[in-house]
Amino acid sequence: MELHICNILDDLKKDDIQAYLLTQFTNIEYISGYKPTSFAFCVIKENPIIYASKMDMEIATKTSCIDVKEYESFKLMVDELKNEGIETLAIEPELPYSSYEKLRDDFEITSKTYINAQRMVKTPEEIEKIEKATEIAQKSFIQLDVLNNGNSEKAIAFDLERLMIENGASKESFDTIVTSGANSSLPHATPQDKLLEKPVLIDWGAIFKGYCSDNTRTVVYSESQQEIWDIVAEAHDKAIKAIKPGLKCCEIDKVARDIIAEYGYGDNFIHSTGHSLGLDIHETPGFSLRDDTIIKEGMVITVEPGIYLEGEFGVRLEDTVAIYKKGLVIGDLPLQFD
Amino acid sequence: MELHICNILDDLKKDDIQAYLLTQFTNIEYISGYKPTSFAFCVIKENPIIYASKMDMEIATKTSCIDVKEYESFKLMVDELKNEGIETLAIEPELPYSSYEKLRDDFEITSKTYINAQRMVKTPEEIEKIEKATEIAQKSFIQLDVLNNGNSEKAIAFDLERLMIENGASKESFDTIVTSGANSSLPHATPQDKLLEKPVLIDWGAIFKGYCSDNTRTVVYSESQQEIWDIVAEAHDKAIKAIKPGLKCCEIDKVARDIIAEYGYGDNFIHSTGHSLGLDIHETPGFSLRDDTIIKEGMVITVEPGIYLEGEFGVRLEDTVAIYKKGLVIGDLPLQFD
Repeated sequence: MELHICNILDDLKKDDIQAYLLTQFTNIEYISGYKPTSFAFCVIKENPIIYASKMDMEIATKTSCIDVKEYESFKLMVDELKNEGIETLAIEPELPYSSYEKLRDDFEITSKTYINAQRMVKTPEEIEKIEKATEIAQKSFIQLDVLNNGNSEKAIAFDLERLMIENGASKESFDTIVTSGANSSLPHATPQDKLLEKPVLIDWGAIFKGYCSDNTRTVVYSESQQEIWDIVAEAHDKAIKAIKPGLKCCEIDKVARDIIAEYGYGDNFIHSTGHSLGLDIHETPGFSLRDDTIIKEGMVITVEPGIYLEGEFGVRLEDTVAIYKKGLVIGDLPLQFD
Repeated sequence: MELHICNILDDLKKDDIQAYLLTQFTNIEYISGYKPTSFAFCVIKENPIIYASKMDMEIATKTSCIDVKEYESFKLMVDELKNEGIETLAIEPELPYSSYEKLRDDFEITSKTYINAQRMVKTPEEIEKIEKATEIAQKSFIQLDVLNNGNSEKAIAFDLERLMIENGASKESFDTIVTSGANSSLPHATPQDKLLEKPVLIDWGAIFKGYCSDNTRTVVYSESQQEIWDIVAEAHDKAIKAIKPGLKCCEIDKVARDIIAEYGYGDNFIHSTGHSLGLDIHETPGFSLRDDTIIKEGMVITVEPGIYLEGEFGVRLEDTVAIYKKGLVIGDLPLQFD
């Protein structure tokens, strides 16, 4: 049996839980190799099983390392588990309430993230895929030559996606953000049908073999923009230098947040310093105010401080860090461009 | 106050429920005009309120017709609702279990889809947007001239997305499916880095002002492929003709399913006949085996029967139907191409 499954079975045993129900697509992909295209229920137990939709049976049986059977009805699935003697069941915290409602009368339910503890710490093979995704994304960014592109924000976003795919990505890891001028004060701005204003903020990533990359660069033009840029760059650099296994995630957030606050922009840093990534673009843990997860070797977390001045502009700088003894930035894209 | 909100308040009153918590992005967008980019909690009550994340405050206050305040913590939000005297709370069935867990001790919880009843029946303005999205998608498909394109599946999918954006879409409404040869037996196939084989199946859609379109065409080449295509086309046409307000959704599914079964391919029609669409690409109700929702004027539902022969090929034909007195196919793209 796969190592991931064995680890979960060990954890379940410790907690006296007989089975663990997975429904999140990337959790099922992580465990089995099969990524559902409509819905699926994966039950981790001594003899793990995936209930796949009829339309997914072909792809599921071709890609899953766990036995697959066709899902017929929720009731039938519940009956099968009960007939096996299963009384205690763990669920993902993300399970929709409506599914929980259909389980609670038949099982003693515990909500727990057994799988997250493993997904947090990437294997060397996983990190390689994130590195490759980053390489594709950064190479595409250079090729795009955005500042001499002369297109609209929307067209530039699209060109960047095209380059990433030509360079080997399966797709973008999230909707590419190309924003400029006053709109750049919106952290998740949507690219518009307008030519680039100043400054220019681009937040983009590629997916390679299922794994995401994530970077942001902001190109500034005026002295006042450069002043903000310098503060964000200082927060970015010092936060990355501070990363060390054994520290808490919130301590890294504090490094970036304190620097920005010292310069008087504390209220303008309106999000966390970073998030983990992998099969999902947003994973746990994150470098955020209240996340006291201990940093471990193998975690891959972004560092992306920003300062947002409503009505004026925003600056964000983001790199992805693979944590060995010290944080190691993935990729070699410069922070600043001439 | 907006009509949508008044309707929900009326429904809540009938059920003796004081407030309704929304977290699904498109539900919040439907009600308020603001589409969250990270997370948000919208509480429908006498004085409705949206708790938006700090990073979304600028966009939320600019776009929402409901008052917005900054989210600080779950506990604070719960305390505010309790201080207002709220004891009975409705939640969406999709609410993650972890959020339900943080609410259940403080409120009497009911899970109900108050908002779906409204979203099911589209206004003329909503239907216009779906029509425009379909027009963009179909025009792009014609421009693409896929059969003379000479590119890989992956490149064709990308070209189609580019054309849709050039023609006014904000983006594709789901990952474009361009599949060919044996892979076309996977209903949700991923485009590959290979030249087109035969037959060619394309399933694509555009988003216009938030609203989705959805179409599928399959181009067949051999007599055996044409034979399957004819059966699917018959199921497609007869199901569309059968649509009438007052019937149950499952009755339309039965029309398509019976035709395909009569020809001996019942086991090869491995999904529902169709799904509603709107702000989401998959909405309720659907033309499926067990959906006994009564069809109403204003519903917009796809009709997409298919036959999938594993190891050989698949055929699916899909149009989107806006239901007036009779079903009315949106768009004018022919089913067959020469």
